[in-house]
Amino acid sequence: MNDSSRDEPVIGWAEIERAAERIAPHVHRTPVVRCASLDRMSGASLFFKCENLQKTGSFKARGALHAVLSLSPEEATRGVVTHSSGNHGQALAWAARQAGVAATVVMPRDASRVKRAAVEGYGAEVVLCEPTLTTREQTARQMVAERGGRLVHPYDDRQIVAGQATAALELLEAAGPLDYVVAPVGGGGLLSGTALAVAHRAQGACTVVGAEPAAADDACRSLCAGRLIRPTRTETIADGLRTALGRLPFSIIRHHVERIVTVDEEQIVRAMRCVWSRMKLVIEPSAAVAVAAVLKQPKAWHGRRVGVILSGGNVDLDRLPWLTPDAIRPATPPK
Amino acid sequence: MNDSSRDEPVIGWAEIERAAERIAPHVHRTPVVRCASLDRMSGASLFFKCENLQKTGSFKARGALHAVLSLSPEEATRGVVTHSSGNHGQALAWAARQAGVAATVVMPRDASRVKRAAVEGYGAEVVLCEPTLTTREQTARQMVAERGGRLVHPYDDRQIVAGQATAALELLEAAGPLDYVVAPVGGGGLLSGTALAVAHRAQGACTVVGAEPAAADDACRSLCAGRLIRPTRTETIADGLRTALGRLPFSIIRHHVERIVTVDEEQIVRAMRCVWSRMKLVIEPSAAVAVAAVLKQPKAWHGRRVGVILSGGNVDLDRLPWLTPDAIRPATPPK
Repeated sequence: MNDSSRDEPVIGWAEIERAAERIAPHVHRTPVVRCASLDRMSGASLFFKCENLQKTGSFKARGALHAVLSLSPEEATRGVVTHSSGNHGQALAWAARQAGVAATVVMPRDASRVKRAAVEGYGAEVVLCEPTLTTREQTARQMVAERGGRLVHPYDDRQIVAGQATAALELLEAAGPLDYVVAPVGGGGLLSGTALAVAHRAQGACTVVGAEPAAADDACRSLCAGRLIRPTRTETIADGLRTALGRLPFSIIRHHVERIVTVDEEQIVRAMRCVWSRMKLVIEPSAAVAVAAVLKQPKAWHGRRVGVILSGGNVDLDRLPWLTPDAIRPATPPK
Repeated sequence: MNDSSRDEPVIGWAEIERAAERIAPHVHRTPVVRCASLDRMSGASLFFKCENLQKTGSFKARGALHAVLSLSPEEATRGVVTHSSGNHGQALAWAARQAGVAATVVMPRDASRVKRAAVEGYGAEVVLCEPTLTTREQTARQMVAERGGRLVHPYDDRQIVAGQATAALELLEAAGPLDYVVAPVGGGGLLSGTALAVAHRAQGACTVVGAEPAAADDACRSLCAGRLIRPTRTETIADGLRTALGRLPFSIIRHHVERIVTVDEEQIVRAMRCVWSRMKLVIEPSAAVAVAAVLKQPKAWHGRRVGVILSGGNVDLDRLPWLTPDAIRPATPPK
């Protein structure tokens, strides 16, 4: 996990191609969809990579499966452990089941009911802990010590990053040449993987832009400062992006990502509702962050071909952020 | 619109193929998606044709565009008129704009805000009337008399039926051989088009099944009786299926549809929520009717390859049928 120079990316093209081959039989090749309304609103030609339609409801299935398929036979007998605010936990539980490996997932007590139920549904053991990053990491290390499994970090792991890179690979193959690819950034696994795939594949013709909640903007500040800055606050509705940017992802992002656009909470909710309403796709707030970044600065993308990674769709359908008291009156059939 | 014999379908294969060619440059070739959870719940291999991702948010774009593209140059100068509970109105407004033709849409006063706003957004004129079928038909005829446009009926029209048939055509091409195709039935345009496409394409190897709300079951009763029975009640949440089965669709359905499965309102809401939650797709209650039919009788489809047409995704996101008073408390970020 050392820093890399511009000329020697930590994860090479061959590693990403191998990840793509390995996981292909098990994951969905998710569709890339267009939307005339959002094209009009942004002034750009948008290509949405639907990782909300991925196995387990997010791109995390890619990295998790790649990590599990990369275990040695001996490691596989001891299983895997992780901590996750939700989607990585679900993904690792699912991946472990695909490979017949045991999984333990440490989750914060405030993780959504939906996400917790899904992890358990995939047959993994859930261990709850206090909702701070430090406690989560400690609890996960303790589980590894007790049970001897391999810790699969949600993003600070080269197999994970190589796996997440495969989403952008498919996006470029399906959409053709793109001027920009926009991906949300929390821990940085997806954004760094995207940046590597684009750097290898588009050879400088395509710019990678990160999208981050202003209320959890450590990646943006780290990129500006040129060094990893720990988050001071993470109070965003985008629950998948509350984590701190990882060292390995940052070492890639600092070289291969042009800029990170931050968006406020209202912009996230508006973008989320817009995608549900116009595109008929259920996306979670973290995915909406990338859409909000595109809608926030239409001039920046005007006339360009822009790929947007819709990272996931795991939301609690009983807790929608745009609902008002009026919403509890169901639609009534006519007399 | 006369009744047809079994050997002479009213709409031939050439007409459906021509419709597919004509509309292809303008409509989406919507994805066919799979879902492991719903496969498990149904015991079948399900192939969902995502017409909720179609232009205007429903399959209706296909038939409406085919009807508009089939106008003579003289008819085109006078424009089109229709009456619609929503989706056909949106679709005709959109299709008319594609072809540079004027459109007038008669809508019931109780049509959802979302659907009315969409019709107006596509540049059509909306004329409101009382929410009864008789008043809607009268008002539409009056508009035709006053303005001289061509009345494009939502389903009792051969161009419309030929256009709707193209969805099943694409489903069969994408999914390969299917044992069943399930489509919802209201006026019958989609179900009759689906039945023709399957009859022509699968040559008896695939059975077409309709899905209908028990609370608006005139198609089921008509098929049983062997004659067109007018609906006595239409109090269903599936607003797209409140219309009476049309003469032309019935003449096709009676020969080419094996049976119609009815589902109650609770089953519709449960199926709708299940698709949102598991498949991350926004579908409207009318589309959920077909899913509910599959989930209601798992034994009927066990081990079979079943195509399901998700007909549309136009819902009011502020009025979700499963919401309780608890739902108005939005998710709060952690302290």
